[in-house]
Amino acid sequence: MKLIDSIQRMAMLSKILKKESKTVGFVPTMGYLHDGHLSLIKTAKQHTDIVVVSIFVNPKQFSPDEDLASYPRDIKRDEEMARLAGADVLFNPSVEDMYPEGYATYVDVKGPADTLCGKMRPGHFRGVATVVIKLFGIVKPDIAYFGQKDAQQSIIIRKMVEDLNMDIYIKVLPTVREKDGLAMSSRNTYLSEKERMDALCLNQALEKCEEAVKSGERDAVKIIKMMEKIIKAKPTARIDYIEAVDMKTLRAVSTVSGGTLMALAVFIGKTRLIDNAILNP
Amino acid sequence: MKLIDSIQRMAMLSKILKKESKTVGFVPTMGYLHDGHLSLIKTAKQHTDIVVVSIFVNPKQFSPDEDLASYPRDIKRDEEMARLAGADVLFNPSVEDMYPEGYATYVDVKGPADTLCGKMRPGHFRGVATVVIKLFGIVKPDIAYFGQKDAQQSIIIRKMVEDLNMDIYIKVLPTVREKDGLAMSSRNTYLSEKERMDALCLNQALEKCEEAVKSGERDAVKIIKMMEKIIKAKPTARIDYIEAVDMKTLRAVSTVSGGTLMALAVFIGKTRLIDNAILNP
Repeated sequence: MKLIDSIQRMAMLSKILKKESKTVGFVPTMGYLHDGHLSLIKTAKQHTDIVVVSIFVNPKQFSPDEDLASYPRDIKRDEEMARLAGADVLFNPSVEDMYPEGYATYVDVKGPADTLCGKMRPGHFRGVATVVIKLFGIVKPDIAYFGQKDAQQSIIIRKMVEDLNMDIYIKVLPTVREKDGLAMSSRNTYLSEKERMDALCLNQALEKCEEAVKSGERDAVKIIKMMEKIIKAKPTARIDYIEAVDMKTLRAVSTVSGGTLMALAVFIGKTRLIDNAILNP
Repeated sequence: MKLIDSIQRMAMLSKILKKESKTVGFVPTMGYLHDGHLSLIKTAKQHTDIVVVSIFVNPKQFSPDEDLASYPRDIKRDEEMARLAGADVLFNPSVEDMYPEGYATYVDVKGPADTLCGKMRPGHFRGVATVVIKLFGIVKPDIAYFGQKDAQQSIIIRKMVEDLNMDIYIKVLPTVREKDGLAMSSRNTYLSEKERMDALCLNQALEKCEEAVKSGERDAVKIIKMMEKIIKAKPTARIDYIEAVDMKTLRAVSTVSGGTLMALAVFIGKTRLIDNAILNP
């Protein structure tokens, strides 16, 4: 596995790979890899000739009061894990290389970026779309891989790629969970033992939702109330949002149907976790 | 010369050309071609294997009170002129194909897009950057050609390409002028005979500016006052702006130096014309 920390060298390699007609799979991450990332890397390795994993922690998607400084980093561990999962290149550019003095260009995806996490984290998805389009420009992937856990993110990236006529296929893979159901996330490392227990409430609420839908409930407000109850029972939990939305537009729906995404964000102590389920009534 | 009006077919052709290692030169225009455009096409033909010219009139760069509906169009004439200049493909997608229902993605270049024409035409350069990144995605050029007349536009596009790590070389060619000095523009067709005479004041003012600089004047305010005088002498002329700016950042300068761009926009009757000169004291 090659380690590349310069944009210029990564772009040069991408150009050579294109010339050699090699297909490139790309897994953009912010590092501190977990099994969710590894499942993306392994799948990419099955689909494409060369798999590039980026571990750039993107400052533009954090607001000043968020956890940029404390975001977990461990490059040695990432190297080892990416290599074992089959990555061919680990790309880790510097902030100065990605956003030099005078950097000025931003991408906005109106609509799907304005709901859910976009409402709570203004500017977040502008930062995400901007870094992803930059990474796409450097890596020139044929297929890029995202996790269903960050549902809104992958919907926004897909919309951006479609709107800007980019020739990249966006593949979204299922959320990988711990044995007890907690969705894998680099931020899980922030949780204390007590919080780690309480954090199960996100998945428990989603399971409750799926059960209710299975028994015929279609009223989004009623379902969300049931979910709230489960989460509010946990002392360290504070709901940021629970919303039933259309899977494509991310607009709120009042009745659950096929293609409804139930999404939630919950603070467990100071750690903000997200999770979601696509409902199939 | 091929005529292509579908994005899908254009994108397919671009992909084939890439596979065949053909270099692609791209001249994005809004049609109603003139000698300025033809000089871009001819130069592109010297540099690259295949020259694509687009003539899409981009609604996103017009504000509601601007001349979108009346913008001059003559596809037959464009076809003939592009063919004679050596274009290989004339690309003319529909508005519905470029901006389908639910279109959501926009590119902003902060800083250079906020001055000069950007101040007077809010949203204009967002529209320009957005359509150009889309066209780049579809055409996949190696080199794209722009005219110096639209100085701010090419500075913004260059900044976008640099910031977003796009592998495209932006080539800016000198403004082509009528024999009497008027900068070529599709909008010149709006001018009455009387206005056509008055319109010379833009170039006359720039010539006066260059003369003053040659004789040692460096004070931007003084030079701009001289220019204003020339333009105000024309009954149909109304100044939108005259500004001396840094050629790269487009920030106003008070002292003229190498790398100063003198830019102006003037309404001649209802027609808004722009022109500029790079100063070399």
